[in-house]
Amino acid sequence: MNKPDPFSNLRIVLSHTSHPGNIGAAARSMKTMGLGHLYLVAPRYYPDPAADARASGAIDVLERARVCSTLEQALEGTALVAGLTARRRDVGPGDYTLREAAPELAARARTQPVALLFGNETSGLSNAELGKCQMRVSIPTSPDYSSLNLGSAVQVAAYELRLALLADAVPSEESAEELATSEEMEGFYRHLEQTLYRTDFLDPAYPKKLMSRLRRMFSRARPRKDEANILRGILTAVDKSIEK
Amino acid sequence: MNKPDPFSNLRIVLSHTSHPGNIGAAARSMKTMGLGHLYLVAPRYYPDPAADARASGAIDVLERARVCSTLEQALEGTALVAGLTARRRDVGPGDYTLREAAPELAARARTQPVALLFGNETSGLSNAELGKCQMRVSIPTSPDYSSLNLGSAVQVAAYELRLALLADAVPSEESAEELATSEEMEGFYRHLEQTLYRTDFLDPAYPKKLMSRLRRMFSRARPRKDEANILRGILTAVDKSIEK
Repeated sequence: MNKPDPFSNLRIVLSHTSHPGNIGAAARSMKTMGLGHLYLVAPRYYPDPAADARASGAIDVLERARVCSTLEQALEGTALVAGLTARRRDVGPGDYTLREAAPELAARARTQPVALLFGNETSGLSNAELGKCQMRVSIPTSPDYSSLNLGSAVQVAAYELRLALLADAVPSEESAEELATSEEMEGFYRHLEQTLYRTDFLDPAYPKKLMSRLRRMFSRARPRKDEANILRGILTAVDKSIEK
Repeated sequence: MNKPDPFSNLRIVLSHTSHPGNIGAAARSMKTMGLGHLYLVAPRYYPDPAADARASGAIDVLERARVCSTLEQALEGTALVAGLTARRRDVGPGDYTLREAAPELAARARTQPVALLFGNETSGLSNAELGKCQMRVSIPTSPDYSSLNLGSAVQVAAYELRLALLADAVPSEESAEELATSEEMEGFYRHLEQTLYRTDFLDPAYPKKLMSRLRRMFSRARPRKDEANILRGILTAVDKSIEK
């Protein structure tokens, strides 16, 4: 049996990038660290000569980049999504520094696709985008100036992941379990939201806050495929009981 | 007695840089990691509007940069010089990966000036320049493409040094979030089990297996107090809906 290549299970997702030069710089950063899968969600200008110029010897990464209209498309099939944020907003169980996060991301990439998600240069990741991330990852920066160039942020992240992947990590029992994919978890969240409406637990006027808190909690659990199925089964059983 | 600031003992030296945009990018990379001392040895074009543009919010680092005609001037007063090279040429006692080198460089910067030396974009460091370095430091790269952009190389090096400098400083702060207690979680599991019986999802003959799987999953989430309360609230709402 062929061993899957963990480098090919790692995708870099750039969402709503404003400057095409940064897309080229990101491609170059990736290639120097052995990463080849670039996904672009609704880039403002792409393709663009500025992207090609900054890519330098990584034109092939740009040429194979997939342009997606929605984040869901870019995350299809991923089992773990790490969103890069400028700093730790809430230091909680879902928040990691890049160095803390790298071993888990690398271990997961040995068996299933993993995404690193970077937001717009100015506004970063939206709350909706962060809601799709199981890990919120920050690169420690100076409190005086935390604004890394997008290509530089991709470079640092790709560097940490390369080192984590090369570290001779034996896949742990935990990472050998197959996680539920982004689509499966999104299906669960939709179902949960519907069921919570029916129980009147969710106020239809303010559904977002509770749902985002529930997302954060379940994200931290990294539900496996069979566990996601159990959760769906519970919701279905609740639905039927209510109907009776 | 004042403690010397190790960050101010770290200087970045760029030798014979061709593209002024890279000087600006290097300044930005430095500032995000709290480094402020930039030395330029015989830059081809400097000052230059392209440097200012790429520096973004780090114009102050550019303005304080010292332009030197010789490397000796830039290294004046340094106790340790690390030359960045594209790859390990000879793996010998003077050769380090960046991660191997960072602790020694950081430790030295607590007491004496330390320089990180970066060569020309195309030709790298000359043998004469490498001769001035006590450490030859490489950033591990893909064998297929090892050409980091200069600004990105400075970013990665500054990042490693920042982490090494902070490592000794203060013990990392633990999350201040208060987790749910064992008793609270046990109460939740009992409630969950009862509600699942009522929905007929749980087979009363074999309840243990499913409950232990659910326990494992929720345990991994490390639910906080407020999250445990939300979960209990959901169960209560479900109970009421079933009673209706």
